[in-house]
Amino acid sequence: MNRVQNSILALSGGVGGAKLALGLADELTPGQLHVLVNTGDDFEHLGLHISPDIDTLLYTLSGLANEKLGWGLAGETFSTMEALQRLGGETWFRLGDKDMATHLWRTRQLKQGKSLGEVTAGLARRLGVLTHVHPMTEESVRTTVHCVGEDLAFQHYFVRERCEPAVTGFSFEGISAARPNRDTMRLLHDKAFSSVVICPSNPFVSVDPILQVPGLWLALRDNPAPVVLVSPIVAGQAIKGPAAKMMAELGVPVTALGVAQHYCTRYPRLLDYFVIDDSDATMADEIGKLGVGVAVTSTVMKSREDKQRLARFTLQLGEAQ
Amino acid sequence: MNRVQNSILALSGGVGGAKLALGLADELTPGQLHVLVNTGDDFEHLGLHISPDIDTLLYTLSGLANEKLGWGLAGETFSTMEALQRLGGETWFRLGDKDMATHLWRTRQLKQGKSLGEVTAGLARRLGVLTHVHPMTEESVRTTVHCVGEDLAFQHYFVRERCEPAVTGFSFEGISAARPNRDTMRLLHDKAFSSVVICPSNPFVSVDPILQVPGLWLALRDNPAPVVLVSPIVAGQAIKGPAAKMMAELGVPVTALGVAQHYCTRYPRLLDYFVIDDSDATMADEIGKLGVGVAVTSTVMKSREDKQRLARFTLQLGEAQ
Repeated sequence: MNRVQNSILALSGGVGGAKLALGLADELTPGQLHVLVNTGDDFEHLGLHISPDIDTLLYTLSGLANEKLGWGLAGETFSTMEALQRLGGETWFRLGDKDMATHLWRTRQLKQGKSLGEVTAGLARRLGVLTHVHPMTEESVRTTVHCVGEDLAFQHYFVRERCEPAVTGFSFEGISAARPNRDTMRLLHDKAFSSVVICPSNPFVSVDPILQVPGLWLALRDNPAPVVLVSPIVAGQAIKGPAAKMMAELGVPVTALGVAQHYCTRYPRLLDYFVIDDSDATMADEIGKLGVGVAVTSTVMKSREDKQRLARFTLQLGEAQ
Repeated sequence: MNRVQNSILALSGGVGGAKLALGLADELTPGQLHVLVNTGDDFEHLGLHISPDIDTLLYTLSGLANEKLGWGLAGETFSTMEALQRLGGETWFRLGDKDMATHLWRTRQLKQGKSLGEVTAGLARRLGVLTHVHPMTEESVRTTVHCVGEDLAFQHYFVRERCEPAVTGFSFEGISAARPNRDTMRLLHDKAFSSVVICPSNPFVSVDPILQVPGLWLALRDNPAPVVLVSPIVAGQAIKGPAAKMMAELGVPVTALGVAQHYCTRYPRLLDYFVIDDSDATMADEIGKLGVGVAVTSTVMKSREDKQRLARFTLQLGEAQ
């Protein structure tokens, strides 16, 4: 099989996933990588359509991301937010001045009748991103975080409330009417992917929404391409974001094993390989008992080289299948 | 009559009108001045509701205006526009990063069901403007500039095409269905205004739209408050904007007399006083023959003192009535 010709499919949420996606893009030939991105975090704010995970992907892959801040664009300013604060407007979601252009552009294109997929492809092209970045679906899916005493729209939970409320569960409004991304489904049907990499994103609010788009996870399972997942939990902690806190609140063991149980229970026989960090090596046997191949490596991605190395590792697992 | 208790009504377009409005605000007690502002220049752009003349008024009266640039806010940056340019978006209308907050805020308030008048009052309050700034109407009126070979929406003519096409006429879409601003009509009905000052704004695209809101100019004429108009043409030139160029293209004499003829023909017996610059003093007799009182003074407003002095002059004319 000519691996260079075959495509690789990655599933990703925001920051953590984008790191591995960047490593994968570095390791593959231009255009070989497709990334299917969570849109459950999307929301309408100040009249703008905001797709946080898609933007994190695009900004990371284009080299424009603000690595220090962990979100948004490098060299960003916040003049609009400062002026909006003066007017008593909503400023809890900090939109940078450069970032604002993305949302204005996207909102306008959507209003002109373009689909989110077309708009995302247009943005990628203009930002010089050769990786194919796809929204998980064209339909509107909105993640609700059920918390003790209240339900919160995802960004209200994540940004406005800083993940402070204790979660009891999640739901994805609109998901039963959503159809999976057509481009990736066509490639799956054509067996064009040599492997599928589920990036180390939040299981509950980044990967679950993607996998629960009707028909998607079964299509991934029934496709010959091996599915490799990288654990977002390392040594009992999430590298970024509220995954560990959520697991604790849900009563799930805050370990790589807990993550593996989540996936193997909800999506039986989906995963071929579960990648854990060296620090979690002692759990390998127990994870293996869930019926998944376990691979151990250093999964913490600090440098660009770390990202590339982990990307190579996941790709080699796919080839070894 | 207690002048301090009585209100003053000014009619204004953008920059030129805002200068005199600022002078009037300085000379009057807080809240005594009402400004009725042209909204024919309003437009929807990048999904935002933009009211250029209202904003120029608010920014000028709040001391936030960019006097050097002649539009927008002082100390403005243009990061969003630069990023939008990279995306191939529309950047011919240069929205500053701070200014953007105004449009986002307004658009959101309008979408929530507030009227343009309420939104304008809210903006004024938040910017610390005590002058009552009113849109000429709550209804949508859109100025079209008829040019040789094409019709252009006002901002396309004014900003995108830099007033270059030769004009043949103007129309105000939606004006027949517009109703004049309720607050000012109520005050007119109550004879609350001791005088009306028509600021030195463009006759065709700033003042005409206001006066042609059905019922408005007749209500002004039939009200006992004297109407004082300051000529926007001084020594055959417009201080700012395309008024002189338009007059030349329309075959109207580019003089204060030409301006007086325009108003006295279209709005018979509306004007009580027509204020011209010292440099046009020789025209006083001929303008007087149109049946209007002529007052001569220095009308060029460079300094804050110039604005206050001209404001005092127009107010004294009203009192002399």
